[in-house]
Amino acid sequence: MSKSAINLLEKFSKFSEHWSPKVVAEMNDYQFKLAKIQGDFVWHDHKDTDEVFFVIEGSMRIDFRDGKVELNEGEMFVVPKGVEHKPFAENECKVMFVETRGVTNTGDASGELTAEKDVWV
Amino acid sequence: MSKSAINLLEKFSKFSEHWSPKVVAEMNDYQFKLAKIQGDFVWHDHKDTDEVFFVIEGSMRIDFRDGKVELNEGEMFVVPKGVEHKPFAENECKVMFVETRGVTNTGDASGELTAEKDVWV
Repeated sequence: MSKSAINLLEKFSKFSEHWSPKVVAEMNDYQFKLAKIQGDFVWHDHKDTDEVFFVIEGSMRIDFRDGKVELNEGEMFVVPKGVEHKPFAENECKVMFVETRGVTNTGDASGELTAEKDVWV
Repeated sequence: MSKSAINLLEKFSKFSEHWSPKVVAEMNDYQFKLAKIQGDFVWHDHKDTDEVFFVIEGSMRIDFRDGKVELNEGEMFVVPKGVEHKPFAENECKVMFVETRGVTNTGDASGELTAEKDVWV
């Protein structure tokens, strides 16, 4: 087994594109992914899994059909499975996601923002 | 569903005891837990699940039978299932753990450091 710590800011320094999650760690059948986000994402949900958002740097918002949640650095939120949501960040925000392996970032709403899976950084 | 962000430092401010993980969020059948740690923990492993350590503030070390890993703020590590490890922090360190619901913090090495489960903060 590797004995190196995973430094999140160092990992973030290795890519610049937005809305393109990169895997940094796996735990059982879950993946920890980093993404830089800015602007509007698409409305989508994940039918089979909850999804964790954890803001590492910056701030973002998650819109829901019936409300919203603002997330700042050091704050997290769990979007329950099946709940439609639309992430948004006015300025670039560094986010860590925790998801089951193989989940599609846009859920069923595939399109230009649908990211390739299992890309590690 | 709740629409409030989970602020980790605010959650940490609500308890002071060491080695006593508090649940702050659940995702599917996983739990996100916060603990303040200082000094030596016991050697143990978790037979059925990997375990994520994520340092929120401070620094710590995880000793293995064949090595060690140093973790500073913003760094994480995944201890594979079945691998014996012993966490240590010289000064108080704030850590987030990700584990399956119901896991015992000391594995099979029950003793005075074995914490009550499912305590939320």
